[in-house]
Amino acid sequence: MVVGELVQEKELVIIGGGPGGYTAAIRAAQLGRQVTLIEKDELGGICLNHGCIPSKVYTHAAKEISKLSHLQDIGIGFEQAGPAIQLNTLIAYKNRVTNQLKNGVAALCKANKIEVVKGVATFLSDDRIGVEAGHDFQTFQFKQAIIAAGGTPVAPKGVTPDDERIILSHKIFSLQDVPKHLVVLGGDVIALELAMTFRAFGAEVSILLEKGTDFPFDATITKELKRLCKKKKIVLQTDCEFKVVEATEDAVHVHFTNKLGEDSTILGSHFYTTGDISVNATELGIDRLGIERTAAGRVKINEQLQTNISPIYAIGDLTPGPTLAVKAIKQGKVAAEIITGGKSEVDLSLLPTVVHTIPPISTAGLTEAEAKELGYTVNVSQFPLGSNGYASIVGQKEGFVKIVADEATDLILGVHIIGEGAVELSGMTTIALELVARDEDFTFPHYAHPSVNESILEAVEGLVGRAIHMAPKKDLVRTK
Amino acid sequence: MVVGELVQEKELVIIGGGPGGYTAAIRAAQLGRQVTLIEKDELGGICLNHGCIPSKVYTHAAKEISKLSHLQDIGIGFEQAGPAIQLNTLIAYKNRVTNQLKNGVAALCKANKIEVVKGVATFLSDDRIGVEAGHDFQTFQFKQAIIAAGGTPVAPKGVTPDDERIILSHKIFSLQDVPKHLVVLGGDVIALELAMTFRAFGAEVSILLEKGTDFPFDATITKELKRLCKKKKIVLQTDCEFKVVEATEDAVHVHFTNKLGEDSTILGSHFYTTGDISVNATELGIDRLGIERTAAGRVKINEQLQTNISPIYAIGDLTPGPTLAVKAIKQGKVAAEIITGGKSEVDLSLLPTVVHTIPPISTAGLTEAEAKELGYTVNVSQFPLGSNGYASIVGQKEGFVKIVADEATDLILGVHIIGEGAVELSGMTTIALELVARDEDFTFPHYAHPSVNESILEAVEGLVGRAIHMAPKKDLVRTK
Repeated sequence: MVVGELVQEKELVIIGGGPGGYTAAIRAAQLGRQVTLIEKDELGGICLNHGCIPSKVYTHAAKEISKLSHLQDIGIGFEQAGPAIQLNTLIAYKNRVTNQLKNGVAALCKANKIEVVKGVATFLSDDRIGVEAGHDFQTFQFKQAIIAAGGTPVAPKGVTPDDERIILSHKIFSLQDVPKHLVVLGGDVIALELAMTFRAFGAEVSILLEKGTDFPFDATITKELKRLCKKKKIVLQTDCEFKVVEATEDAVHVHFTNKLGEDSTILGSHFYTTGDISVNATELGIDRLGIERTAAGRVKINEQLQTNISPIYAIGDLTPGPTLAVKAIKQGKVAAEIITGGKSEVDLSLLPTVVHTIPPISTAGLTEAEAKELGYTVNVSQFPLGSNGYASIVGQKEGFVKIVADEATDLILGVHIIGEGAVELSGMTTIALELVARDEDFTFPHYAHPSVNESILEAVEGLVGRAIHMAPKKDLVRTK
Repeated sequence: MVVGELVQEKELVIIGGGPGGYTAAIRAAQLGRQVTLIEKDELGGICLNHGCIPSKVYTHAAKEISKLSHLQDIGIGFEQAGPAIQLNTLIAYKNRVTNQLKNGVAALCKANKIEVVKGVATFLSDDRIGVEAGHDFQTFQFKQAIIAAGGTPVAPKGVTPDDERIILSHKIFSLQDVPKHLVVLGGDVIALELAMTFRAFGAEVSILLEKGTDFPFDATITKELKRLCKKKKIVLQTDCEFKVVEATEDAVHVHFTNKLGEDSTILGSHFYTTGDISVNATELGIDRLGIERTAAGRVKINEQLQTNISPIYAIGDLTPGPTLAVKAIKQGKVAAEIITGGKSEVDLSLLPTVVHTIPPISTAGLTEAEAKELGYTVNVSQFPLGSNGYASIVGQKEGFVKIVADEATDLILGVHIIGEGAVELSGMTTIALELVARDEDFTFPHYAHPSVNESILEAVEGLVGRAIHMAPKKDLVRTK
């Protein structure tokens, strides 16, 4: 590699234009820093172009399809026609949305005077980086750099993706037809969303959960999810040992050992797994530079988001912790604020999990099991959406709100929602938990009537036997 | 009136089984009190049977109809057929929902061992009440009573309701056909919901706003609403003086003076107005008893919700303040808690307003004008839903989040939302305002990505020029 003679001086260089990187770039620009943002592919990264945004277009369509018969129940005039969904139309819509959002990011970069450089970045030293784009090679000297290069999904053993029948991660959004029978390996939240989405689209769906794994929620939510899977005729194979998936011209054969220890095969039309994230670190040359990584290969960072080479920061999927856009976005802001001399911090303890299943899930704070493990004497309460007026009105009566509280202090430790409205309710539960809300902080305010958020109130009131719309458990009622 | 010889001793008598009354009854029963609930008509009251719940069935249907073309855009397979809505089917659905909820209330009363008495109540003295049901008459002696008898809509001058073409309040939910042209008098939130709902159902709609009145929101929300009305071809006549509405066999003639002072007539097919609430006090005999009322006829109460006759409490629509179920519900709980010896209070200053227009509105706290009037140096910020990823995904890009903050303390004084998700977002804004959130309390937590609630974050970040997805206004950015 030949280093160009002209070294351009830059203040802040950010590698990767995904949600972490572009957020860091904009925040740093807002705070007066000159920013150079290097992106090898498309602004918005995996999240905007292939992950979060496309997947939510799909889950949105699935949710709407699952409501059609309700719409006929309430007298809306239409007739179902043809297949549940035309995937090519959905894909065209998805592309319009992602293009609009991507153009929005480009316009924001421009408006914030962020220099966007297309190309593949490689660290040359601890203050220089090279960017290769075809025959062009530029060298930047930087004061600080933020690595926000993300990761790439890798298939587990036994899976050789062909992008047609054996599908890894977001390649599933390229399918032009709804699979006849989709076999899903894994119970991660993306796998779950896709299982329910393609089921709503009309596919048969099987989910394989490997031995020692389960859906990643509070046990009561997981139980409800399993009930819903059964009701939707999604076949769950638990306690499996996955062996291999093989594709033929028109089928996939998924070989595994079932929970009884028997060799089993599911014959499906397509296979999906989310895979693990392998960080995009090698081509960046961070190992050569001596940037430390964890045993799992993630880039080590301190509380200031700095790597062991202090002018170089790292954020997002290539750092330890969950591979969620919400984490990358927050880290992006915080890195920019720290670099520009501000005080700022990331606290991942109250990262909400929002899953666009049907119905959706949102959770914030501790599960019942986690709270017990931490030594709390736990008080739990659960309010069913079947008893909520608004859920009845909109015909979405499945699910519940579960509250995990500390018996000793009345502190709300966790809120776990599965049901209509869960996505937007996540804001309420997260901010209340951040503000260290006790039960009375939830019960004092007014709740719009009718609304699903009244269920959060009732679940909290239920901690002391005071939910209005739950049958009394006399021994529970306490005067306060 | 002959008082029966047998006087039955009761602990707590509650008059009226609407949301205020039945909530008070259940809460008092939870706290160990024997409760007798007197209802002359149906449990659940106007709200459940004729008001809040039916209206939300209608607004729900309207919202779904307005999304149909979007569903075709995303590839969902159906064809629109026949009229937009079959009102008889919607009415049957509404009746199923209200019956289910009403039966739920009855079951909860039973489970809480609440004695429900059907009949018309009349106070005989300050500790006795008679209940007449046909030929039966019972007399109860009570330790305490809660008046939760609500109110009845009365037509304004010039309006003589006939329940067919000239319609007052909830009688509109009896219409069997969608009006050809609905003329709405007034810009109250119920009138607004109905105007947008029937417009979505296919009716032509005109709204008459009387001189000196406007939609009851922050001015920016009102402006956006007017833009949306225009876009939906809802005709707004502002600064009118309504004179009279007359019905013929197949039309209504609505006579008014327009904003130019000219005599005008709208020829419509139907006329709607919400009317004022007249409290249901006369037949109760509260005037004879000497219970004091305000100049407007509402029952006067102190902070403990007591009337001037201290064992008699009053809650809900017949007390001063807004005629909202959310107020009655809260007062019902608080009255029960106070009567059973607890400490409890009602604070109506943070009553959220939620309106199921298309898109919906939710507001909590002060408007910009109110904050200025109170002497605050106000900092405002507005984030458009057109720049929110999730709003784009679900095809609901209209509207915005507006934040009103105190420049001096960074306290958030008001949150005004018009747009997708506003209903369930009301919980977040109300609880945050109750917890006296400053801007950093909103910006520190994580927000699910993508979700509409990110728009609240961005609107708050915009207070100091730090919204990621808004073009920069450099002079606004502040280091903190």
